[in-house]
Amino acid sequence: MSVDVDHSFAAPSNVRGAEFPRVHPDLRVTFRLQAPTAHTVQAQISGSGADPFDMIRDDNGMWCVTTLPVVPGLHYYWLLVDGVAVNDPASETYFGHGKPTSGVEVPEPGVDYYDIKDVPHGEVRARWYHVRTTETWRRAYVYTPPDYDTATETRYPVLYLQHGAGEDERGWTTQGRANFILDNLIAAGAATPMIVVMESGYAMPWPAGTPLGPEFLQQMSAAFEALVLNDLVPMIDATYRTLAHRDHRAIAGLSMGGRQALHVGLGHLDTFASIGAFSGALFDTFDPQTAYNGVFRDPAAFNRQVRLFWLSAGTAEERFHQAVQRIHISLEEIGVQHELYESAGTAHEWQTWRRSLHAFVPQLFRV
Amino acid sequence: MSVDVDHSFAAPSNVRGAEFPRVHPDLRVTFRLQAPTAHTVQAQISGSGADPFDMIRDDNGMWCVTTLPVVPGLHYYWLLVDGVAVNDPASETYFGHGKPTSGVEVPEPGVDYYDIKDVPHGEVRARWYHVRTTETWRRAYVYTPPDYDTATETRYPVLYLQHGAGEDERGWTTQGRANFILDNLIAAGAATPMIVVMESGYAMPWPAGTPLGPEFLQQMSAAFEALVLNDLVPMIDATYRTLAHRDHRAIAGLSMGGRQALHVGLGHLDTFASIGAFSGALFDTFDPQTAYNGVFRDPAAFNRQVRLFWLSAGTAEERFHQAVQRIHISLEEIGVQHELYESAGTAHEWQTWRRSLHAFVPQLFRV
Repeated sequence: MSVDVDHSFAAPSNVRGAEFPRVHPDLRVTFRLQAPTAHTVQAQISGSGADPFDMIRDDNGMWCVTTLPVVPGLHYYWLLVDGVAVNDPASETYFGHGKPTSGVEVPEPGVDYYDIKDVPHGEVRARWYHVRTTETWRRAYVYTPPDYDTATETRYPVLYLQHGAGEDERGWTTQGRANFILDNLIAAGAATPMIVVMESGYAMPWPAGTPLGPEFLQQMSAAFEALVLNDLVPMIDATYRTLAHRDHRAIAGLSMGGRQALHVGLGHLDTFASIGAFSGALFDTFDPQTAYNGVFRDPAAFNRQVRLFWLSAGTAEERFHQAVQRIHISLEEIGVQHELYESAGTAHEWQTWRRSLHAFVPQLFRV
Repeated sequence: MSVDVDHSFAAPSNVRGAEFPRVHPDLRVTFRLQAPTAHTVQAQISGSGADPFDMIRDDNGMWCVTTLPVVPGLHYYWLLVDGVAVNDPASETYFGHGKPTSGVEVPEPGVDYYDIKDVPHGEVRARWYHVRTTETWRRAYVYTPPDYDTATETRYPVLYLQHGAGEDERGWTTQGRANFILDNLIAAGAATPMIVVMESGYAMPWPAGTPLGPEFLQQMSAAFEALVLNDLVPMIDATYRTLAHRDHRAIAGLSMGGRQALHVGLGHLDTFASIGAFSGALFDTFDPQTAYNGVFRDPAAFNRQVRLFWLSAGTAEERFHQAVQRIHISLEEIGVQHELYESAGTAHEWQTWRRSLHAFVPQLFRV
């Protein structure tokens, strides 16, 4: 990491050798683009709600701008070259917004739970398998804990972990650093060693231009449910040394993936005993008598069956935060056991979900 | 795959749902970009030597062009928006040219050796490990053959396989489809099941703007050599069920990685008994008496020690092809056993290297 006289440093998300984007100690970010033939260049950070920052051209055609301070975490962003949104050649791309999208990693001061550290590391395995639901070959990402290849008699619980809309099976490890979060928790003895399975939440074709309306989301959710139950869980249990029982199976996800986790998990308590939704509970109304086919109607039965029901949102993603607070109050009133985690100051972005995973995983599969 | 009335189809490299780029039966490619505020948009395919194709704007700000027929395979490409090279939001990006770069996959008619087929599949595992040579944590990609997790008493030979300049450890599986090539060969009984290890060839910092001159390449090569011998091979032998002996160890690579394979392999025949260089032998002069510290000087000794010495190039990458032909003739003259593979009609691109891998792997580790 090259630190400048102004104490700025190259963002960890830069491609090798790239000195920009740079992050400043007060979490401002400086972007740069060599574009001598462009008429205007702007930089826009996703999720911030801020307008694009106008970049200023120097005599050599280098455009540059320093933003206002941003919240820590990974931010999707793009540059606008004469109004056309494009990736920054200096940054890695991450699959988000339905396409490879530039990201800038702004380290959170004093926080290292998602960094790679000197602890035993698990693997992230790309596993191809044939899916009857979609009649296609698909790829799952499978995190195996550090001792998986040496403790050859051990069987492990499994967390199924879903990305958000516009992302894919790569999101949780590439953007979310889920593998490092797990490695660090396991090394500290704070989490049960587990397998984490990450698949794409898109289990049916997505015709170009189809709006992500409630009806289409519901169809997608049903297709994903069939894929998880009929293809993914059986393949994982047949391929890896799992504890193939509901007590040792969890499903969680972020945003769209959180909705999917609620839908699949609450609909199939015979398969999943633990359920988590990170920024996933955006409902205008929530009636515990009717929600999820009445699964909350008998709180005592729910509490007996469900080992962990876990909800979260960032305080800066107001609608999601309010929605989850409403659900929390409703569930409290009728005595449905659950946990609520609120990520201070973070929005509908990966820092909320990294923190959520880090808080959620230690609660899973406790003896 | 959506097929149009003109029999064109969405390229397999498109992001989900994207109908463009489209490939035509005669291997022309149609690119499109929605960019109403741009003044000019062009499309340029890397490796073709062709000028950028001017795209034409319609009344809605959609720019479009159909290229001339291209050779099959994966081509890096970019769009020029008002002269600024940017990625196409409709395509996956691949790490090439030192950054994430759009790619368009043009299927080769009648060829399926690198497609995913209904055969047992190996895994591609991301493995993080600490490297003393660089004093950093690094990531290796490790292909394990289909039976690796079930044939738990079996030990496997290992191929170390390197990407080219501007690429990284992801290249061989993402661009090259090395895992599917291995899966298909192993399923057909045409190749010995083996582990394939792919690391980044950059084992020292690459200061911004450093030209890729011979001196810098040599420094990089020495750093990579130290990494392979002191860190990578020991880690792999300690972590995976390998046959940890030179007879069962090969090193190969493409372009810069081919040079590295020659340098590391020919320099350490105690570690590697099989060596392959794909488009990797670009030398102005080749003197078998002095090359590689005189390893070819005693052909009989070389032939006794080396199980496989394998060279390739595409016929359309003229300088590489001529160079490898010169070496071939020199080695023939003095009786150094080797094999030469020439990929008909392909240039300094991934189709040459897919074909090379497909031809090389069956020759490895024969009993």
